[in-house]
Amino acid sequence: MEYIYGENTTSFPNVAADPMTGELTSLLDINPSQLEIIRNERPATPPPPSSLTDHMLTIPWSSSAGWGQPKIVPYGPLALEPSVTVLHYAQTLFEGMKAYRDTNGKVTLFRPDMNMKRMNTSAARIALPTFDGEALLELIKALVRLDRHWIPQLPGYIGTQCALGVGPPNEALLFVICSPVGPYYATGFKPVSLYGTVEYVRAYPGGTGGYKLGANYAPGVVPQRAAAKHGYAQNLWLHGPEHHLTEVGTMNLFVVFRKGDGTLELATAPLDGMILPGVTRDSVISLAKDHASRRQVLDGLPEKFELVERPITMKEVQAAAENGSLVEMFGTGTAAIICPVNKIGYLGKDIIIPTGDGSAGLGPVSRVMLEQISGRQFGTIPSDWSVVVAE
Amino acid sequence: MEYIYGENTTSFPNVAADPMTGELTSLLDINPSQLEIIRNERPATPPPPSSLTDHMLTIPWSSSAGWGQPKIVPYGPLALEPSVTVLHYAQTLFEGMKAYRDTNGKVTLFRPDMNMKRMNTSAARIALPTFDGEALLELIKALVRLDRHWIPQLPGYIGTQCALGVGPPNEALLFVICSPVGPYYATGFKPVSLYGTVEYVRAYPGGTGGYKLGANYAPGVVPQRAAAKHGYAQNLWLHGPEHHLTEVGTMNLFVVFRKGDGTLELATAPLDGMILPGVTRDSVISLAKDHASRRQVLDGLPEKFELVERPITMKEVQAAAENGSLVEMFGTGTAAIICPVNKIGYLGKDIIIPTGDGSAGLGPVSRVMLEQISGRQFGTIPSDWSVVVAE
Repeated sequence: MEYIYGENTTSFPNVAADPMTGELTSLLDINPSQLEIIRNERPATPPPPSSLTDHMLTIPWSSSAGWGQPKIVPYGPLALEPSVTVLHYAQTLFEGMKAYRDTNGKVTLFRPDMNMKRMNTSAARIALPTFDGEALLELIKALVRLDRHWIPQLPGYIGTQCALGVGPPNEALLFVICSPVGPYYATGFKPVSLYGTVEYVRAYPGGTGGYKLGANYAPGVVPQRAAAKHGYAQNLWLHGPEHHLTEVGTMNLFVVFRKGDGTLELATAPLDGMILPGVTRDSVISLAKDHASRRQVLDGLPEKFELVERPITMKEVQAAAENGSLVEMFGTGTAAIICPVNKIGYLGKDIIIPTGDGSAGLGPVSRVMLEQISGRQFGTIPSDWSVVVAE
Repeated sequence: MEYIYGENTTSFPNVAADPMTGELTSLLDINPSQLEIIRNERPATPPPPSSLTDHMLTIPWSSSAGWGQPKIVPYGPLALEPSVTVLHYAQTLFEGMKAYRDTNGKVTLFRPDMNMKRMNTSAARIALPTFDGEALLELIKALVRLDRHWIPQLPGYIGTQCALGVGPPNEALLFVICSPVGPYYATGFKPVSLYGTVEYVRAYPGGTGGYKLGANYAPGVVPQRAAAKHGYAQNLWLHGPEHHLTEVGTMNLFVVFRKGDGTLELATAPLDGMILPGVTRDSVISLAKDHASRRQVLDGLPEKFELVERPITMKEVQAAAENGSLVEMFGTGTAAIICPVNKIGYLGKDIIIPTGDGSAGLGPVSRVMLEQISGRQFGTIPSDWSVVVAE
């Protein structure tokens, strides 16, 4: 099967064959040293916002040979057989990352090892091939390096989307595309309202909610439209008879309570199979744990502070909103980083959620988390979470 | 966006525009009268089993114009932008049908109106465009007519697979492909063993299990492999704390109990949002209801007979297997029609399910149902379920 138009066809030069019998001796993993770059002879300039960059990375896989030769080729359509499984059975997964031009002039990726790890976990769940994450990361760096002039002036970045799937049962294609993106909130941060959703579910125990599969996303479009129709920005996905808070739209969710002794409790649902293991979620948890243990104290957070991964019910949130112990609530994700919540429509009534001063509505915890994470992304706070792309 | 290779590009000639302003005045539905047929100049012969036929049907859709010109073109790859939503978010649905050469020499489709109806229901659930089902059926007939010589000699047929999706947010493509298929069971019918599955779920309340979406299928591959590893052929999807029997692999499920007064009860799970509304399921229910009400008595079924759509628990099945009141169990689907079950691995033990004599293992109810349905498909039993494709 040939995926790419014209002469940019796929190939498997790294198949190991027995020299005597010609039999394949092993399935090969992604091999960055075999990267072929075919430059786009008609590069687009200047980069219009939200279009795609000049090049893309493709790596074919087959069940008989393993991973084939990685190629960076001009961005263009894939030639797919109408019978490929992705078009019928949704056998596909994806990842999204950002590449930044940081304040030190370096091109960086944020915690890309987390994306590589999650991508492999997703692949195993949906019977797609796994791979050497470090090898793929090297190739993504090569792609970002080639199209680095597409990174907008600060505070923009290019978004990098990996996808794996699209094959007939015995073939797959991994591809990476990039697009320049401005700041997520063109008009600055703004708190969002949530529709407490019980008619639809995003995930369920034993399902695929904990994996970044295409199958989790398309079914959310209609519930999102329903939330908008009710006058709310996003779905708050509630689970089970006790209406546990799980996620917000396509973001993880954090709730801040003030306990009786004045301690701030930052709570989020545990990774029980229904919750996507978000990179930003993990970053918030890491920062919060380090502060709570005094390993790395964060300016602006109180000393009496704890991070807890635990189930949170709507009853609890409702009671806390009424008695004044609810401090704030926010979503986390790669796109928005932090997204404060100002209201939940729940069983026909609105629960008002406290927000901070200013149009951004950032509360005492979310403000610190946004500063800490974006500081690491833009290079003002040195961190091994920021991975440099050599130029 | 152009989907098809070479000169077979998509077009929207049926856009209604205001003659003064040029503004579009309406979105158009599928229009069979605009069908263009581009014949394959290099038709394949003779048809190898399970390959694809010479032609395919494509109908483009855009949010600004509605449905464009239907075309029947030589089978070939689709040119898809790597950024299309189906490759990332699984926005796709499908339908499968069969075309038969019946014993009267006619080419027929089996209850295609049911597929058209379900396809529209699926489209609405996943935010894809709906359409005039009768118009699409006309076009499918034109495709089947053109490739009718690919229908194998009895008892084969060609399988017709429709899919809708693959577009960026404002575009979609509906396409239909066909392949010749022999009898489903090359070695004759054989009962299957089931693995009572509680670690994974296929569907859940508020999810998409009741719709024929790609998103429901790829997540089932890994559970199927797990069932095979345990030594069973298919997953028996059990739901909730009471382990309700929902579906079998990708088939609906029927259980036959003998009640205290000797009545045979044919039971199947109700369409509660978790159960796919199968065409064969509906056919079995229709035939069973007609027999029970004496509207159309079926040879071989007892007079004391009832059809009930109700929840069925594993506890009930286990008890019935032990006390001898379990008569048989079978799956239904377009591919196999009827598939008897001989064993369920459940919580570490095997429950033996009665099967009929002979290698097929058909019991008293499934045998009659298979005769009745396949008789209608192959034309030995006249029925308005069988829709003729004019030649």
